[in-house]
Amino acid sequence: MPDSRNADVLIVGAGPAALFAIFQLGLYGLRCHVIDGLGQPGGQCAVLYPDKPIYDVPGFPEIDGEELCERLLRQAAPFEPRFTFGRTVVDLARDPGGKWLAQLDDGSHVRADHVVIASGIGLFNAPPDVGVADAELKPGPAAAWPLERSRGGIVVDPATFETSEPGLFAIGDACDYPGKLRLILSAFHEAALATQGIRRRIAGGKAASVEYTTASRRIREKLGQS
Amino acid sequence: MPDSRNADVLIVGAGPAALFAIFQLGLYGLRCHVIDGLGQPGGQCAVLYPDKPIYDVPGFPEIDGEELCERLLRQAAPFEPRFTFGRTVVDLARDPGGKWLAQLDDGSHVRADHVVIASGIGLFNAPPDVGVADAELKPGPAAAWPLERSRGGIVVDPATFETSEPGLFAIGDACDYPGKLRLILSAFHEAALATQGIRRRIAGGKAASVEYTTASRRIREKLGQS
Repeated sequence: MPDSRNADVLIVGAGPAALFAIFQLGLYGLRCHVIDGLGQPGGQCAVLYPDKPIYDVPGFPEIDGEELCERLLRQAAPFEPRFTFGRTVVDLARDPGGKWLAQLDDGSHVRADHVVIASGIGLFNAPPDVGVADAELKPGPAAAWPLERSRGGIVVDPATFETSEPGLFAIGDACDYPGKLRLILSAFHEAALATQGIRRRIAGGKAASVEYTTASRRIREKLGQS
Repeated sequence: MPDSRNADVLIVGAGPAALFAIFQLGLYGLRCHVIDGLGQPGGQCAVLYPDKPIYDVPGFPEIDGEELCERLLRQAAPFEPRFTFGRTVVDLARDPGGKWLAQLDDGSHVRADHVVIASGIGLFNAPPDVGVADAELKPGPAAAWPLERSRGGIVVDPATFETSEPGLFAIGDACDYPGKLRLILSAFHEAALATQGIRRRIAGGKAASVEYTTASRRIREKLGQS
């Protein structure tokens, strides 16, 4: 399969949850490949409300979706994610070596150790409150996976954001758990906990130590800070 | 008790978790009284790293604690919180009517329907990694409460952030649950879910509908936006 690309983590979707997941995973040396059916980063944020003010992103009394996504992209940039836009995942399976193998609609493949589903739209029928035209609502490949669902999301363990399928994680509007709110600020928390869930899997089940960006020289160096 | 003041929610601590809780609770019409032993808002953020860059607040490639707190205060300001600085809660109990009654170290009282503990420091001995001088580590009133603890925090239900004591919530570094990370971004999520937990209690256990700030005219009006 000569066209297959490798990444530590494949992220399906490129909205705020995905963009912040790139940053969180990058802090711990994990390289991401992000695939989104839209032609640009930002997901719903960029498509549904690029210039509509959002008031509940912490620290921003007012911000529009476009600026938020631009800032999240800038925050993730030091970790050099690879993006594939305008493509959808049509099949996702394990290869004989246990890695995830995603097939895209142009026939190409991406191989990764872990997968994070961060796409609210296109993966399933979107819930009615998302406000997308009916024409865009078609079941995506996830509709065929044997994943437990509830309230339009994939059921995850809220300690790790892992789905019932080991190594497959879901965050943002794609996931559901008790108390779940479909807020961007929760997606950020979910991305951070999924990152630790992935690190724990890599460490063979042991909790990996968390570093604080204010105190870690290693992280400051990664971010190009002195 | 002529000096007693009333609030919908008493928040113990005035760090980022508390400041964002004011905003979240305010969106749903709940008025907060915030008490902190420090002389200013911001908690650890203002005391331990006012001018130290933080790199993992979503949407801010770099921000210092002072600016973050200033922005959170500005975001919460439309909801006109009451602040009491330089005072600590020395006793917290239920009055005969079932309301919470907090006694402060100057003898005054604050009465509230719900309490959110959002103070990592001063409420218990801080965990070793917080880096506060030993002199500041003395058990606070919470040390006497019959609350389940783990890893230096109060055990909460991560769907509601309610402790084992009904009506008493904990967020930020004060709480613990499976997967808990002591990150500011998680505190924001915890504040949002605690808000819905409080609303559910007010609604007699029914889930209260969540409004999105981009779409809700009521919320825009509350924020002084057209």
